[in-house]
Amino acid sequence: MSKSNIELEVTRYKAKNPKSALLQLEAQRYLPGGSSRGTSYFDPYPHFIEKGTGPFLFDVDGNKYLDLMINATSLILGHAHPEITAVITDQASKGTAFSGPTESQISFSKVLIGRIPSFDKVRFTNSGTEATMMSIRAARQYTGKGKILKIEGGYHGSHEYVSVSVYPPASKLDPERALPIKEYTSQPDSILDQVYVTPFNDLESVQNILSRYHEEIACVIVEPVVSSFGYLPAQKEFLITLRKLTKELNVVLIFDEVQSFRIAPGGAQEYFNVIPDMTALGKIIGGGLPIGAFGGKDDIMAVFDPTGGGAAVAHAGTFNANPMAMRAGEIVMEHLTDEVYESINHLGTTLRDQLSTLLSEFEIDATVTGIASMFGVHFSKNPINNYRDVLMGDRDLKRAFFVGMLNENVLLQSGAAGSLNVLNTEEHVSMFIDSARNVLRRIRQ
Amino acid sequence: MSKSNIELEVTRYKAKNPKSALLQLEAQRYLPGGSSRGTSYFDPYPHFIEKGTGPFLFDVDGNKYLDLMINATSLILGHAHPEITAVITDQASKGTAFSGPTESQISFSKVLIGRIPSFDKVRFTNSGTEATMMSIRAARQYTGKGKILKIEGGYHGSHEYVSVSVYPPASKLDPERALPIKEYTSQPDSILDQVYVTPFNDLESVQNILSRYHEEIACVIVEPVVSSFGYLPAQKEFLITLRKLTKELNVVLIFDEVQSFRIAPGGAQEYFNVIPDMTALGKIIGGGLPIGAFGGKDDIMAVFDPTGGGAAVAHAGTFNANPMAMRAGEIVMEHLTDEVYESINHLGTTLRDQLSTLLSEFEIDATVTGIASMFGVHFSKNPINNYRDVLMGDRDLKRAFFVGMLNENVLLQSGAAGSLNVLNTEEHVSMFIDSARNVLRRIRQ
Repeated sequence: MSKSNIELEVTRYKAKNPKSALLQLEAQRYLPGGSSRGTSYFDPYPHFIEKGTGPFLFDVDGNKYLDLMINATSLILGHAHPEITAVITDQASKGTAFSGPTESQISFSKVLIGRIPSFDKVRFTNSGTEATMMSIRAARQYTGKGKILKIEGGYHGSHEYVSVSVYPPASKLDPERALPIKEYTSQPDSILDQVYVTPFNDLESVQNILSRYHEEIACVIVEPVVSSFGYLPAQKEFLITLRKLTKELNVVLIFDEVQSFRIAPGGAQEYFNVIPDMTALGKIIGGGLPIGAFGGKDDIMAVFDPTGGGAAVAHAGTFNANPMAMRAGEIVMEHLTDEVYESINHLGTTLRDQLSTLLSEFEIDATVTGIASMFGVHFSKNPINNYRDVLMGDRDLKRAFFVGMLNENVLLQSGAAGSLNVLNTEEHVSMFIDSARNVLRRIRQ
Repeated sequence: MSKSNIELEVTRYKAKNPKSALLQLEAQRYLPGGSSRGTSYFDPYPHFIEKGTGPFLFDVDGNKYLDLMINATSLILGHAHPEITAVITDQASKGTAFSGPTESQISFSKVLIGRIPSFDKVRFTNSGTEATMMSIRAARQYTGKGKILKIEGGYHGSHEYVSVSVYPPASKLDPERALPIKEYTSQPDSILDQVYVTPFNDLESVQNILSRYHEEIACVIVEPVVSSFGYLPAQKEFLITLRKLTKELNVVLIFDEVQSFRIAPGGAQEYFNVIPDMTALGKIIGGGLPIGAFGGKDDIMAVFDPTGGGAAVAHAGTFNANPMAMRAGEIVMEHLTDEVYESINHLGTTLRDQLSTLLSEFEIDATVTGIASMFGVHFSKNPINNYRDVLMGDRDLKRAFFVGMLNENVLLQSGAAGSLNVLNTEEHVSMFIDSARNVLRRIRQ
């Protein structure tokens, strides 16, 4: 692919988004990069959002998108679902957040504990970041150990101990092994000292690290389906090995299911039948409102129990478990029946299969990843098993595909990944495939 | 005061809250301590909340409270303000959260930057915890240094580097000096190594620490009004000295104004006319929805700027700057006019003065702290200048006062502190004082 193809897509994009161009200039006067999150920005500038309706998103220039970004997998009922709107409206009239607990928290806790195999008890936070952070603190207190083991290229939120080897550039990688790499240049060395890193799906590596350092390692944190690798599911043997080793060695196994919870009623742990000690949630469980949750075994979660003279580990948060998020979350869970999972996951398979076929027709070196309702594309010949495989992909092509799909009115994640919501139909999959065909045609010219 | 007086208040409380007792038992089956935040629990058990209306809170047992807890100062317009309800309802129908930026984020950013002297640029988060965390990461990247200096007894959220010397028991304090003390027993030593601690208002201590260790210290984080000390304002000289030293020594001064922002249109920094490099916000700025914000000087905030090839420090968050919180927050700011501050702050002075007088009448050793619309009570003879002074207070008396006030249908923070909202009137202050009189009468029996 020539550079001029990207430039052509960018030019088209700019022509379609003149108001957003002006708003971005204005936004940058007040916010670094014009927004408050990394994924909100892309080159040349993001489109500014007007509203969402069901599976569609509308921007300020009047463009209507089939939204497969769907706020980073979180809006699994689509935008502005009428029942979510109703419960938000009702709760707003009763008050949005209180100092004390509510029955809605009990009710929603029961639902999650009923679904998620690893949940004896649960607590709520305002984000997935807070959920993984509190899980790690619990693991430290419970084991009496301090270090963590994470996956090279794994993302678990914006706190220090998981902000290691998240998106390390190829130039910084040791070709022989995965070493902890700073996310920002002034990150203290003492943070790196607390973190071990392993390639995904590498049994030998986790065996080596855990057998050698288990006396210092409090927890392993892993996404059973790695979001930033295009929703790459783990090889089951990798998860089974992790479970076996951590159990033997008194290491807490934390599944970050902030995104993968959407693949089955009980999340990826149910899907793979590998049950961790703790699980962090976020995204879909708040019906589009800010939320996170973490839970696990009784004896680990007991570190937060204040009854009997004070909790071993403090956990505070003014908006934790606010009733609006609890009630909206419960509506999401009511909608996610076995039949709905079957349908949305089947649609996901259809999309991935058709996309694979399409890419073959164009004779483009590409691999489609994903599972259930989630998908990703890598423009690369090699199979995708870990972060280094992901890095081998053609980034220019990925970018051209993302911007090209925007020009076709299909919104993906900027990493050329996406997910379906319960309102999607075969027709939407056809729209996606037709759009992809148009983009690939232009790219191959 | 005898123990039997506390027991009497607790017995009264239990009699008034039978449904909550059952709900707490049920909640504890699903959540450690029955809820998701430290302050939601108190002994013997918290009351479960039904709804809030203006300045009043209703629990499941039908008790109606004058709510001076007001969700930890956050609900400055009271519960379920009609304009907040309207904007939430409207936004819910348009979608709660999007992948891209919105005009509402620009608009609200402008408002905050217009008010807060230290804000050149701002970013939004989902909590105050995330706001202080990102401020510290920015300071590290900006200065190239790793350590932080915090106040003994200062609370800044639930992340590791501020979870040091937050509520250390008297038994763990070194009588000679403030040393970093773990918040939980298995907290890694490497965290303590990154934190210096100073007593509040101690000029000599900060001078010593900063002059000796400034080459390692990235930032000082301090609440100009310390929430957990009963909203104790800093001595102005302390803030001026901090500002002077940090400027000289290339240390970023971070004001945690998550709570103190409510004391003046531009927060405590405006009130004291001491302008930090960065400021963290939360609580009131989301109109009762989950939110946080951090901002500061252009050159520091630039570490988050992704334009031009990627941000030096990553900042992500699925729900950051969601339009519901942006719009609700802007309504709060519209209501907080100079006249409103004058009125609410005057009412705060009235409350504190009348409470002081009342305590004198009962000849109880007590000090009333606070500023503007915030207040606290310490049952202690000594003046309150720092954490160790706070620890000298009679905890049994504080607890009896808190539970006693609940029995009088006045809700305070469990630390016997509170704050007013814009709907409060002289009549509410009279209710508070009359209730306090009743409680003190019973306690003195």
